[in-house]
Amino acid sequence: MAPTMDNNTTTITTVEIIKEMPEEAHPMKGGDDLNSYSQNSCYQKGVIEAAKAVIVEAVHEKMDLENNIITTFDPSKPFRIADFGCSTGPNTFFAMQNIVEVVDNRYKSLLKNQQVEFHVYFNDHANNDFNMLFRSLPQNRDYFAAGAPGSFYSRVFPKASLHFAHCSYALHWLSKVPKEIQDKNSPAYNKGRIHYTGTEKQVVKAYFSQFQKDLDSFLKARAQEIVGGGLMVIQIPGLPSGEVLFSRTGAGMLHALLGSSLMDLVNMGIISEESVDSFNLPQYHPSIEELEMLIEMNGSFTLEKIGALNHPMKNLAFDAQMTSLQVRAIMEGILTKQFGDKILDQLFEIYTNKLQENYIVFDKEIRKDADLFLILKRKIN
Amino acid sequence: MAPTMDNNTTTITTVEIIKEMPEEAHPMKGGDDLNSYSQNSCYQKGVIEAAKAVIVEAVHEKMDLENNIITTFDPSKPFRIADFGCSTGPNTFFAMQNIVEVVDNRYKSLLKNQQVEFHVYFNDHANNDFNMLFRSLPQNRDYFAAGAPGSFYSRVFPKASLHFAHCSYALHWLSKVPKEIQDKNSPAYNKGRIHYTGTEKQVVKAYFSQFQKDLDSFLKARAQEIVGGGLMVIQIPGLPSGEVLFSRTGAGMLHALLGSSLMDLVNMGIISEESVDSFNLPQYHPSIEELEMLIEMNGSFTLEKIGALNHPMKNLAFDAQMTSLQVRAIMEGILTKQFGDKILDQLFEIYTNKLQENYIVFDKEIRKDADLFLILKRKIN
Repeated sequence: MAPTMDNNTTTITTVEIIKEMPEEAHPMKGGDDLNSYSQNSCYQKGVIEAAKAVIVEAVHEKMDLENNIITTFDPSKPFRIADFGCSTGPNTFFAMQNIVEVVDNRYKSLLKNQQVEFHVYFNDHANNDFNMLFRSLPQNRDYFAAGAPGSFYSRVFPKASLHFAHCSYALHWLSKVPKEIQDKNSPAYNKGRIHYTGTEKQVVKAYFSQFQKDLDSFLKARAQEIVGGGLMVIQIPGLPSGEVLFSRTGAGMLHALLGSSLMDLVNMGIISEESVDSFNLPQYHPSIEELEMLIEMNGSFTLEKIGALNHPMKNLAFDAQMTSLQVRAIMEGILTKQFGDKILDQLFEIYTNKLQENYIVFDKEIRKDADLFLILKRKIN
Repeated sequence: MAPTMDNNTTTITTVEIIKEMPEEAHPMKGGDDLNSYSQNSCYQKGVIEAAKAVIVEAVHEKMDLENNIITTFDPSKPFRIADFGCSTGPNTFFAMQNIVEVVDNRYKSLLKNQQVEFHVYFNDHANNDFNMLFRSLPQNRDYFAAGAPGSFYSRVFPKASLHFAHCSYALHWLSKVPKEIQDKNSPAYNKGRIHYTGTEKQVVKAYFSQFQKDLDSFLKARAQEIVGGGLMVIQIPGLPSGEVLFSRTGAGMLHALLGSSLMDLVNMGIISEESVDSFNLPQYHPSIEELEMLIEMNGSFTLEKIGALNHPMKNLAFDAQMTSLQVRAIMEGILTKQFGDKILDQLFEIYTNKLQENYIVFDKEIRKDADLFLILKRKIN
């Protein structure tokens, strides 16, 4: 069954627990042991594979190779692709290989006897495990590879140097926790919780405001870096169209239960209440309408397509143990920074039990998560 | 005193113990502890600073910006620089900053109101410590940075994508130990020694033959990657013009004494004789005449300048302890691979003593080492 774009689709809950790349960098767990990101990112791989068909369609329908083959897409020059927030692989390798293949096929259908060369840049924070990324680069890749360290909320590349940008499950990580929710005197102070599920409207507003700033910074930087007519594919966990509340999604529930597991540790006297009060996940899950509005306001890109990705992984039954492992691979860095690493085993034991207890609700609610998929095109100035 | 190029100059012995990047990759000691490369590379930094004046001169005299500013050196496109065999810094940062500054100044003298952007690529083997490199990138750099993993004896970049290449103290590392010298039945078998100092002519010949192949692979790959008219600066420890034998240079003596220290461990029953017999340093120190010949044979570059760099570090008195630390920072990886890491402390204690015993000879012979400095220009097809 080919994956499709569907504005009304809903998806599996683990969409939430995805790749990462915040400004206050909390890298994915490196290496390749049982708790590492590389061993616990198969859901994301499923999404990337599902996205492939949509990327193929985008390159065919939206990338105007024919009319710009002398200028923007000159085949004698390298075609440059960047993955923003790549983490340590292997998902970034699948995604990049997919893009290289479809673009290469389009060139081949237009040109004879000319081989276009591809330069693929892997971007993530400087504290990402680039050593592991570089050592696991596919041997038989059809591109030249480079790593580009730095926050994608700032410039990473020279002007007009990219033909294709990709950003998968990274943009929901905010550059920082909104100030207001850490301020005891603010109405947005987020006491006893670690995210905005089930909280005051002021908390949600503070989160959205930070997301708005961050997305605009991201789009402004990319607008400088991507050639006019170049494409950008964004995948981000979010809310489908309509009136779905984040707290009624699987992702929202996962965050709420992680907060509640931390509060259990407070009640057991293992960590302080203050350490939980001052801890907040720097993530925002936008709706389709919010994204449409923010991209329009930025003004540098046309939104060629937006929707929720409908893919086979959605239909998997909820698995508490696997979900817990996945959440741990994503969150271990940020949790260790706040609480140290000694609480992790106990925390995730409690968490797994809570997920198991809520099995029935989860298995239903997780269908409301949406893997949002966007295709943007850099306007030609 | 400004550094100068001098074909008859001689230099300090530690020129030998320099940056590295073999095909059988033996990375510099990472991290920043007392034995790390980053803490033991100040001699190399002295050389890089001395090289700055020569690079400035080269960019002014040899880079034809004026006549190619519309095409090759279009200021609206990024100016791309690569450091081949960069190791972990900080020397690569000094070198890249120097190149960016001088090129930027030349653009500024020609253009008003146009800021050229620089993209700097740091190349080394995938097992180099890129994490450390990325985390120590200068905060206030005037360029976009990327890491490009891979052996420089193969292609690392797309066709015609570099404007300036730099390779400092890396090309003397061969892609592998020549086969013949490991073959017990060959006349080039290198028993009881770890390099070609004081050995049979067949051994030297086997080493030169490998260097010839490797340099040609390097030049062929760079010829593809560097734009016509683009420059390449190479620094390599070698022999000055004339009849100086490698065994009578400080570098040659350093290698011979390291071999003899290993043989001491054999006699003490700590390592096996066979493990020393089968260990050989994959390094070659070419003469000016050899380099001239090989570059001419390759045919893709004009040799704009070649000579030995005359710099202030040359006049330092020989220091056995410091030299031993420097050699260890370079050799620890390759030695550990062959002998394990348990012998290192004892080996370098013996080695330091031997250096100390030979103080007077060293302090004289080390002046014969040459920091060779080459400026090549990619021919315009």
